[in-house]
Amino acid sequence: MARQVDLVIVGAGPAGLMAAAWAAFYNLKTVVLDKRPSKIEKGHADGLQSRTLEILHSFGFGDQIYREANRLQEVCFWVLHLLRATPRLLITDDFQNPDNNGVIRRTDRIPDTILGISRFQQSVLHQGRIEDYFLEFIDRTSKNVHIQRSTEPFGMHIDETLVEAADDWPITVRTRSTQDGLTNGVPSNKDDLIQCKYLIGCDGAHSWVRGQMGLVMEGEQTESVWGVMDVIPVTNFPDIRMRCVIHSASSGSIMVIPRERGLVRLYIQLASIQPGAGHRYDRAKGSPEMIFEAAQRIMRPWEIRYDYCEWWTIYQIGQRLGNGYGAHDRIFLAGDAVHTHSPKAGQGMNVSIQDTYNLGWKIGSVLTGTARRSILSTYESERRPIAKQLIDFDRKFSRMFSGRPAKDIADEAGISMTEFKSTFEKGNIFTSGTSVEYAESQVVSSSSGKILRPGVRFPSFQVVCQCDATPVQLADALKSDGIWRLVVFCGDLTQDATNQRLKTLGKGLEDAISALNKPVVEPILVHASSRDNVELADVPAPFYYRSNSNERDYYRVFADDWSYHHGHGHAYGGYDVDRNQGLAVLVRPDQYIAWAGDIDDTGAMEEFLDGCLL
Amino acid sequence: MARQVDLVIVGAGPAGLMAAAWAAFYNLKTVVLDKRPSKIEKGHADGLQSRTLEILHSFGFGDQIYREANRLQEVCFWVLHLLRATPRLLITDDFQNPDNNGVIRRTDRIPDTILGISRFQQSVLHQGRIEDYFLEFIDRTSKNVHIQRSTEPFGMHIDETLVEAADDWPITVRTRSTQDGLTNGVPSNKDDLIQCKYLIGCDGAHSWVRGQMGLVMEGEQTESVWGVMDVIPVTNFPDIRMRCVIHSASSGSIMVIPRERGLVRLYIQLASIQPGAGHRYDRAKGSPEMIFEAAQRIMRPWEIRYDYCEWWTIYQIGQRLGNGYGAHDRIFLAGDAVHTHSPKAGQGMNVSIQDTYNLGWKIGSVLTGTARRSILSTYESERRPIAKQLIDFDRKFSRMFSGRPAKDIADEAGISMTEFKSTFEKGNIFTSGTSVEYAESQVVSSSSGKILRPGVRFPSFQVVCQCDATPVQLADALKSDGIWRLVVFCGDLTQDATNQRLKTLGKGLEDAISALNKPVVEPILVHASSRDNVELADVPAPFYYRSNSNERDYYRVFADDWSYHHGHGHAYGGYDVDRNQGLAVLVRPDQYIAWAGDIDDTGAMEEFLDGCLL
Repeated sequence: MARQVDLVIVGAGPAGLMAAAWAAFYNLKTVVLDKRPSKIEKGHADGLQSRTLEILHSFGFGDQIYREANRLQEVCFWVLHLLRATPRLLITDDFQNPDNNGVIRRTDRIPDTILGISRFQQSVLHQGRIEDYFLEFIDRTSKNVHIQRSTEPFGMHIDETLVEAADDWPITVRTRSTQDGLTNGVPSNKDDLIQCKYLIGCDGAHSWVRGQMGLVMEGEQTESVWGVMDVIPVTNFPDIRMRCVIHSASSGSIMVIPRERGLVRLYIQLASIQPGAGHRYDRAKGSPEMIFEAAQRIMRPWEIRYDYCEWWTIYQIGQRLGNGYGAHDRIFLAGDAVHTHSPKAGQGMNVSIQDTYNLGWKIGSVLTGTARRSILSTYESERRPIAKQLIDFDRKFSRMFSGRPAKDIADEAGISMTEFKSTFEKGNIFTSGTSVEYAESQVVSSSSGKILRPGVRFPSFQVVCQCDATPVQLADALKSDGIWRLVVFCGDLTQDATNQRLKTLGKGLEDAISALNKPVVEPILVHASSRDNVELADVPAPFYYRSNSNERDYYRVFADDWSYHHGHGHAYGGYDVDRNQGLAVLVRPDQYIAWAGDIDDTGAMEEFLDGCLL
Repeated sequence: MARQVDLVIVGAGPAGLMAAAWAAFYNLKTVVLDKRPSKIEKGHADGLQSRTLEILHSFGFGDQIYREANRLQEVCFWVLHLLRATPRLLITDDFQNPDNNGVIRRTDRIPDTILGISRFQQSVLHQGRIEDYFLEFIDRTSKNVHIQRSTEPFGMHIDETLVEAADDWPITVRTRSTQDGLTNGVPSNKDDLIQCKYLIGCDGAHSWVRGQMGLVMEGEQTESVWGVMDVIPVTNFPDIRMRCVIHSASSGSIMVIPRERGLVRLYIQLASIQPGAGHRYDRAKGSPEMIFEAAQRIMRPWEIRYDYCEWWTIYQIGQRLGNGYGAHDRIFLAGDAVHTHSPKAGQGMNVSIQDTYNLGWKIGSVLTGTARRSILSTYESERRPIAKQLIDFDRKFSRMFSGRPAKDIADEAGISMTEFKSTFEKGNIFTSGTSVEYAESQVVSSSSGKILRPGVRFPSFQVVCQCDATPVQLADALKSDGIWRLVVFCGDLTQDATNQRLKTLGKGLEDAISALNKPVVEPILVHASSRDNVELADVPAPFYYRSNSNERDYYRVFADDWSYHHGHGHAYGGYDVDRNQGLAVLVRPDQYIAWAGDIDDTGAMEEFLDGCLL
C-alpha cells in the first residue's frame, strides 16, 4: 500500500532542506529522502553570499548563522614580483622585504562585499551547521515534514494523464534502504512505495532523478586540478585571516578563506597535474601532504604548516548545465543536479538554496490553493538563466585563477593582474546574489522602474515603526511566510494630494471582493512625514487591522524618519521614491518585486494579482 | 554523610542564576537550592537595563535575549488637562480632541534610553525567559553546577574557626524537600547535609539565609498601593506600544510597558485604596477586574479592554535595605534578600543580577587560587552603596508617580509635571546601570582619569580588528571569562616615541616573573594608525601569541580606523585618549576599570596586580 504525500524531496543537502523549509511553512505532507545515514559533519560548501543570508534571515535564523559564521571583510591580492625561476627560500620570522627577493607580496586590498549592496556581508560557515539551522526550523515549524535518511529511490513513474489534476498523486516513487537490510535501524527487506503530487530532485551532481527523466548535463571538464584543505594553520603569513588570492609565477595559485573556529580553507592549484584535455584526474592519487606541499611552494618565503586538518579533497574544474529543469511542472531539479561549476566563487550552496527558495513558495501556494498552477513554469524560466550566467562567470573567473600571472604587458599568454582584479571586483557584485533579475512572466510584470523595478529583490533600508519608534530594516517586514506584500510609499501624509491618493487605495484594500483583500496579500505603509506628526488613526484601517482578528497589527506602518539610537535610514532616497508622487510595489513571497506603479492604481494591482492568485 | 561542595546558592532566580553562571564558568562544585518545583513561567520581573544587557552579552547570550525582548525606544507623557471633577466620557473611534474635554493628552516624548550611554537600549522580556538563557549557559558550560529544585535549607551552621582556612568547608547546611516526602520525584524522608566553602543567599525579600545571620531589613512601607497586569490589550489609545506615564487628575497614575508577544504590562495606581500609615494592604482583597477598572478610569476617554491576561498582582510600595550583606566573607546576601523597592523603575532584576555578577568572579578567583581572599570584602563595599542609591532614587521616583499632578503653579501639594519629567530623565541615566562607579579599594586604584577612570565600567566603541578588518565593539574583547585585561591605547605606531613606549611595555609583558605575565592577565592593543600601515609583526609578540600555545591569537590587536561597512568608531575620541600620550587600562573580569596609567608604567601595573592576584 503506497503512502500518499504532497511532496517528495530527494536529497537533504542545502537545496533539499530549503525546499523542506518551505514545505514545513506550508505544512505540506513531505518526505525528504537521503541516502546517507546522517548529515555531513565536515568539509564541503561553506560560502554564504549576501542574498543567501537575507533569505535565511527572512526565515528567522539568518542572524544566528551570521553570528556564528566568519564574516569576510577584505580581499588581499598577493602576486609574485621580480620573477625568477626559483625564488630564494627565506624562512625566518623577521623576514622584511619579500619583494626584493622575487617572492610574493601584497599588491592590493579591496572590500570583500561591494559596499551598500546588502546589510549582510559574505560569510563562511560549514555547510553542516547551516543544515542544522534548517533542520531546527523544519522541526519546530511542522510535524508533517519527515526526513528519512539511509533511503534512496530506485524507481519512479509519472502518470501523465494525471499531471493537470489538482487532487491526485501522479508520481510514484519506489525507495529502498541504503543500509544492509535496515531502514532507520529497523530490519526491512521490502521496499517502500510513495505516491506524491510533486517531486524535487536535489540529489547532487550525479542526480538519479535527472537520469530518470532522461535529462543530461552539458558542458566539459577543464584541465585545471585543485586541492582543498580545511586546516588550522600555524604561519607567519600576515593575511591568513583575510580572504587572499595568491598568484605565484609558475607554481600555481591559492585562495585563502578564513573560516569559523580558527579554521582556514585553502584552495590550492595543483599545477603539476595535467590530466590532459577530456580526461579526468584520478582523485585517489592525491594526498593532503601532496596538496600542502604545493601550498608551501606557492606561499614561499612565508612559513605555513598545520597541526590539525579537518577535511581535504581534490577536484577538477568543470562547468556543466542540465538540458532541462524537470518534467510536466510536477518533477523539478535543483542545485548540483542541474548546474555544477568550480567551488572557488563560493556559489554552489547559494545558487542551490536560491533554486528551491524560488520553487518552494510556488509549490506551497499551488498546493494550498492560493495560486494558479501555471506559475510553476516560472521556476525554470527564472532559475535556468541564473545558472547559465553563473557558469559563464565561473568559466572566466576560473581561467583567470588557474592561469599564471603575465610577466609584463607583452606577455599575452599570462593573466594581467589589473584585469584579474577588475574581473574579481565585477564578480563580487554577481556572486553576492543581489543582482539577480527575473524576466517578465506571470509573476513579474513588465512595468519598468528604477531601484524598485519588477524582477529584482526588494532591498532593505532602515525605517522607524510608527507605533513604537523602533528602527527596523524594512525587509524584516517582508518575511518568508507565504504572504505577498503591497508596500506603499505614500509620501508626506500631511499633504492633501497624498492623503487623497491614500484614501482611494484604502477603499480598494477594504473592498471584500478585491484581489487586494485576499488573506495572502498584506499592505505595508512607509510614509515620509515626521513620525511625531502622524497618529495611526490618520492612515487607512487596513494598514493596522488584521482582517481576521479584532487585534490591531502595529507593525505595518513605518516612517522614513530619525531613530533615537540608529540614525536616519533615508529610505525614500535609498529606494529612489519621489515624495510627491509616491510608489506602490507588490512583492512576492520571496521578496522579488512583482509589480510597481501608482499608489491609487488599484485596478492594475488587482489585474496583476488576479493573473497569478486564486 | 555530608556532601562537600565549593558553593551553595540559595534561590534560583536571576541573582542566584547569575552566581551559578560564574560558578559554571569557574567549574566550581555548586548546588543551587530552590524551594519551588520549577522556574516561574509568567509575570514577575521583566525590565532589562543597558548594563544588564552588556553583562549578559559578555557571557555570550545577550544578543539572543535582545532579539527576543521588546526594545523600548520612547517614553510618552500623558497628563490630564483642563481638570474637571469628572471628565466627560467619550468612547468613540473618531474621538478627536480629548484635551478640549478635560481628559488626558500626550504632552511630551523623550527617548527611553539616554543617547550614547550604551549600545543596548532598555528592553523588556519575561524573567522566565532570561532564566532559560542562564540555565542553558550553565548546562553547556559545566557539569558541576547542580540545580536542585523543591528543596529548602532549614538549618545552617558556620564554624568560625575555619573561616580563614583555604581548604576547608566552614559552612554546613541542612536541607529538606518542599514536596511531601519527595526529593526530585524520589521518596525521601531524611534530610540532606551539605558542607560548603561559600554560600550565597539569593532567596528573596523573605530571605531565610538573612534570618539565620540575624540580619534585618531596614525601611518602611508607603501608603501607595499598585496593581500590575500583563495583558494583550484591545484599545484605541495611540501609544499602547510606547512606554507611557499617564497622570490623571485624581484617579491615580499608570505606567504602560509594551512587552514581547504583544503583551503590555500596566502598572496601575489603586488610588482608592489607602491602607493607612504603617499598615499593609491585604492582597487577597484585590482582583484583576478591580485593577483594570482603575486603569479604564485613568485612561478615559480612550477605550481599553483585554481578552487575555497572563498575570496580575497587587503590591504596596516599600523601600528597604539590609543592615548587613553577609558574614565572615563566607556567606553573602544578594538581590531582594538585601534590598527591596518599587518595581516601576524596572531595577529589581537588574541590580540583583549585578550583585552576584560582582560577587561571582571574586569567589571564583579565590576558589581557583588566582586572587587573594581579601578581595571578597569589596562585594559589600561596592554593592551596598548601589542599593542605597537605588532606594533613595526609588523613594523620590515613586512619590512623583503616586502623587496627583499639580493643578497650577500655586498647587504645592501636587506634582509639577516639569519636575516629574526632569526627575524621570535624570533617573534614566541612573536606571541604565551604566553610571555605577565603585570606590577605591583593593580592586579599584585611586588614580584619577576622565572617561576611562578606575571604578567605572569600560564603555564600548567600535574598532577594527587588525588581522581581518572586521569591525568589532571593543567591549566584546572583554568577555566574562575570569580574565583581567590590560587594554593598551598606544597611539600611532608610526611615531618613534610611541614605538619606544610600546617596546618597554612589551618587555614587561614578556617578563616571566611579572604579574603582567600571569595567565589571568591578557593584553589587548588598540592603535591609532591606519590599519593598512601596520602589520601584526610590528607590535610586541605578547599581543598576538598565547603564552600556552604556539597558535597565534589574532583577535587582540585593533585599529581605531574605518571599517568597510560600518563606518569609523572614533574610539580614541570616544574614550578621550590622547593619541600622543596613550593610555593603559587594567580591566577587571567584570569590565570595571581597576587601574589606569601610562603605557610604559609597568611598575605601577605590577604593583596593583600583586595587591589582589596570587
